[in-house]
Amino acid sequence: MFSREDPILIAVSGGKDSLSLWDILWRLGYITAGLYIGLGIDAGIAYSTTSQQRAENFAEERGLILHTFDIVQNYKYSIPEIANRTRRGKGKPCSVCGLTKRQIMNRFARDNDYRVLITGHNLDDEAAVLFANTINWLSGYIVRQGPVLDAHHPGLVRKVKPLFRFYEREMAAYALLRDINYVYDECPYAIGAKSIYYKEILNTLENDRPGAKLNFYLSFLRAKDEGLFAIEDQRNLVQLGTCPTCEQPTSAPGECAFCRLIRAMDTVN
Amino acid sequence: MFSREDPILIAVSGGKDSLSLWDILWRLGYITAGLYIGLGIDAGIAYSTTSQQRAENFAEERGLILHTFDIVQNYKYSIPEIANRTRRGKGKPCSVCGLTKRQIMNRFARDNDYRVLITGHNLDDEAAVLFANTINWLSGYIVRQGPVLDAHHPGLVRKVKPLFRFYEREMAAYALLRDINYVYDECPYAIGAKSIYYKEILNTLENDRPGAKLNFYLSFLRAKDEGLFAIEDQRNLVQLGTCPTCEQPTSAPGECAFCRLIRAMDTVN
Repeated sequence: MFSREDPILIAVSGGKDSLSLWDILWRLGYITAGLYIGLGIDAGIAYSTTSQQRAENFAEERGLILHTFDIVQNYKYSIPEIANRTRRGKGKPCSVCGLTKRQIMNRFARDNDYRVLITGHNLDDEAAVLFANTINWLSGYIVRQGPVLDAHHPGLVRKVKPLFRFYEREMAAYALLRDINYVYDECPYAIGAKSIYYKEILNTLENDRPGAKLNFYLSFLRAKDEGLFAIEDQRNLVQLGTCPTCEQPTSAPGECAFCRLIRAMDTVN
Repeated sequence: MFSREDPILIAVSGGKDSLSLWDILWRLGYITAGLYIGLGIDAGIAYSTTSQQRAENFAEERGLILHTFDIVQNYKYSIPEIANRTRRGKGKPCSVCGLTKRQIMNRFARDNDYRVLITGHNLDDEAAVLFANTINWLSGYIVRQGPVLDAHHPGLVRKVKPLFRFYEREMAAYALLRDINYVYDECPYAIGAKSIYYKEILNTLENDRPGAKLNFYLSFLRAKDEGLFAIEDQRNLVQLGTCPTCEQPTSAPGECAFCRLIRAMDTVN
């Protein structure tokens, strides 16, 4: 995944997974810095403000560098506002949020010479995504899933998920034992999300047959490794262009999806 | 799957699926005969006796031919007794029962020149098997699953499942509307079987998102058809031998698994 010499950028949300992962890497002596992306989500519980404080306190206590990138400062509007003002939102800001975070994370890592970008996705997260893709047999998504996404194009940073073997409850236990002060709340907009629904189904399977979730994900990786799939990860085949606005790689012919989103917002005003 | 000229053998259990399927084919004018395999299951509810009566009445009412093959008459012991007397049983006769039925069905169809053997497996059955194989990523089983199993070796009869698109509740409705008198009880030994557990999980998915079960199975067939899998169905690659006892194709070096089972029984006595 990465070596002790690689400068690692860790995406930090202020939740248990990313802060615990950062704590583990810090204790093991890896070269890390955090990136907190301010999404401007309030939802009556000051969600983003609290998350940022937890991340900042964590970094300060350990003398670690935490970069921050604030969406409102940079683009004038928060994620829910951007979602409301564009068609991509459709009442749920999750799609806009994912697109934005992916764009900012990669751009920040590239511009600051980080060789690897890591996220705190745990087994429950990864198994739920795999389950969603499998229950609908979305071939393109199934074959590209895994804990390591190589930087298959110049300008893209390698992405890895070191916690893919750990249950969510294990990460919560780690955070508790290490006395890490994290944000307990899920993002208020995640309520009713499909990923949470699939997590519940997998929890049922896990309760009835302990180990089912881990087995589901690891047996998938094994089957993939042993050559079950004929289809190539399309990302390796597509020739990417460069977005004229943000200069990041994009599969779109002109501007990337993110820059088009921001431009659509400007037009609305 | 089959043409109007093919003599079709339909495996009949006395349940709603196989009797409804037989009724449909009969009404459509296909050349069919039934095969009832007497398993000798009593379990306090005369399960096999009742099932056979229902199948016989059904055939008689329509002037159809029903062949019967009785396990106790041919092998001295019932399926539960065989399971109890052999290691393959392990307290549950399901594995012995499946092996026996597959052997008898194929042998009977071949010996009597039926070109196609059909079973009443419905969407719920097929989706549950696919779910079980996918949740454990059993590559070999995943790639061979489908509603048509070609006769890829001489001595093997083509097997098809014409009801794979129909929900169990649709077949129950058909049987009800057509006034078909079928066995309501599930096999008493199926209680606690994994297949029933996975059916319940799929029912939860279906209740929450109607169409989920059909979509799961059909999107699998589509992905397979579009070349998702690299692995060949191993059955096409393995050179089969001939069992010296029953003269059926087998992947075993000597006697086939079924004949070894029967021999193991003789030894116990």
